Amino acid sequence: MVYVGIDVGGTGIKVGITDETGAILNQGEVPTLVGRPYPEIIRDMGQCMLAVLRESGYQERDVGSIGVGIPGAADNRNGKVIFCTNMGWSNVPLRDELQKYLNKPVYIGNDATLAGFAESLCCVSAGCHSSVFMTLGTGVGSGIVIDGKPWDGFHSVGGELGHIPMDIGGEPCSCGNHGCLERYCSATAVIRMGRQAMQLHPESMIHELCGGDPEKLNAKMVFDAAKEGDDVAMKIFHRYVDYMCKAVYIIIAFLDPEMIVLGGGISKAGSFLLDAIRARIPRYLLFKTLPYSRVEIAKLGAQAGMIGAAMLGKQSMEEAKV
Amino acid sequence: MVYVGIDVGGTGIKVGITDETGAILNQGEVPTLVGRPYPEIIRDMGQCMLAVLRESGYQERDVGSIGVGIPGAADNRNGKVIFCTNMGWSNVPLRDELQKYLNKPVYIGNDATLAGFAESLCCVSAGCHSSVFMTLGTGVGSGIVIDGKPWDGFHSVGGELGHIPMDIGGEPCSCGNHGCLERYCSATAVIRMGRQAMQLHPESMIHELCGGDPEKLNAKMVFDAAKEGDDVAMKIFHRYVDYMCKAVYIIIAFLDPEMIVLGGGISKAGSFLLDAIRARIPRYLLFKTLPYSRVEIAKLGAQAGMIGAAMLGKQSMEEAKV
Repeated sequence: MVYVGIDVGGTGIKVGITDETGAILNQGEVPTLVGRPYPEIIRDMGQCMLAVLRESGYQERDVGSIGVGIPGAADNRNGKVIFCTNMGWSNVPLRDELQKYLNKPVYIGNDATLAGFAESLCCVSAGCHSSVFMTLGTGVGSGIVIDGKPWDGFHSVGGELGHIPMDIGGEPCSCGNHGCLERYCSATAVIRMGRQAMQLHPESMIHELCGGDPEKLNAKMVFDAAKEGDDVAMKIFHRYVDYMCKAVYIIIAFLDPEMIVLGGGISKAGSFLLDAIRARIPRYLLFKTLPYSRVEIAKLGAQAGMIGAAMLGKQSMEEAKV
Repeated sequence: MVYVGIDVGGTGIKVGITDETGAILNQGEVPTLVGRPYPEIIRDMGQCMLAVLRESGYQERDVGSIGVGIPGAADNRNGKVIFCTNMGWSNVPLRDELQKYLNKPVYIGNDATLAGFAESLCCVSAGCHSSVFMTLGTGVGSGIVIDGKPWDGFHSVGGELGHIPMDIGGEPCSCGNHGCLERYCSATAVIRMGRQAMQLHPESMIHELCGGDPEKLNAKMVFDAAKEGDDVAMKIFHRYVDYMCKAVYIIIAFLDPEMIVLGGGISKAGSFLLDAIRARIPRYLLFKTLPYSRVEIAKLGAQAGMIGAAMLGKQSMEEAKV
């Protein structure tokens, strides 16, 4: 039996065929071209799925289920996308629409939740009692896994750690609130701090790395300058690490999972970032002498969404059988 | 079969005998007298338990299990109190010690977690898929219930919502951090705001209600003045409600439980507080048009801890049998 895993993004739709352990057997991608009516987007998704399946050498009868991760809130009970800002989708019958192309059970979930689920099934947090995954990118997404199952809450709107208020009256957020966690822990936050520093510190290496153009600055450049010992960049890095430790501590104080997994673009900084976060967490702990959640860097990268979606399908189908 | 539920507090130890539904059949209390060696405190606990059982008309053979809630971190796997600041306890073998008085299975948990568990079993959040309970008192405790089971995390240090950082660089907290949630959402926070207002506003009714002595001020007085239409008190009340909405929103964005239950002294303000919180939550929601966690006032009051402890025992024993 093989499983289809689809990861819907604002730019592209990734489609993978996996085996029962989540290993990818074949994959493909189509552009999302946001703005089109949803039946068109789902038609492209469906045709890509059939092509990727055909190329893999498997037949339609070999497919156990189809799982789809979307960047928004999804209701896995009725197979509808509840809300998806980037796509402009609201109440879209994704299951019904996709079954027109391949009539198999379709299950859907939030993309960050499914990426965390993938890590917990076959990668860094495998076998964990519980884990919280954070994608540190343009924003901050998150995925909670409890007792081996993805957790998205009662109304499918949980695991939105990026919008937890962390600083009353702090930085304004696109959601309309102030001081949301993603204003401090995203790549966007690093860039914001980097641009502010460029204005004040013409001597910083950051200028050189982005060719003097603040618009070209990215988080990697700031971290690279910090690695090279640039004082200004190092200060930004330490400030970022401090914010991240507070975010990690929110997760510990709330849920106390076995593991906290850091993914997304920022996590490519690897041990440079991880070691600094690990060293600083203890100062925030309530119970200083007790063990606490292990923090690790995600390993699956861009395939995590597809794998998690495929495995959501497999798990949901097995549960439906019981 | 009956169940013993014990709620250990810094001042008193409450002992109850419940039936299988958690209804209390008989109860008693002994002073804790903190500072004594733990075997003495547990001896008083054990003797009180035997007395309460005897008075109830039941025999030792009728007791299914003993559950104990403690104001700290407890490991229900080995029956030890990991850490309990108020009692000065660390690594105390509560199960072994208590079994000297009544040789039955002993299970232990955090008191706020068990109070929330009690509400979820037989009261306001009964039958809920998931709930988060907050005790709004001197500090802020909390209890998470997921799929009908109390959740205290992998290292038994979860559900400490009172110490979630809510304001970077905000009010200093006794835990050593700044801006912890309980600095804004506890009765202590209301009193702090009330005292500050007394200095600036000699005309406020708050002066009258505490006899002009800020040391005698409590949260109820501030809320009572607000109910009477005192402008200064009303401002404090609205500020408190706003903090509470942010705290409630942290719970929604993180876990999205079916219900959030408010307990503790502050919750006695009832619908005056509840209606104001409910009216203000929507402005913080990420998904403005979607359903979200219901907020309710706890109903079990001071007996919640005993009931939750007794039912933890019953549930843990049933699981051990499976």
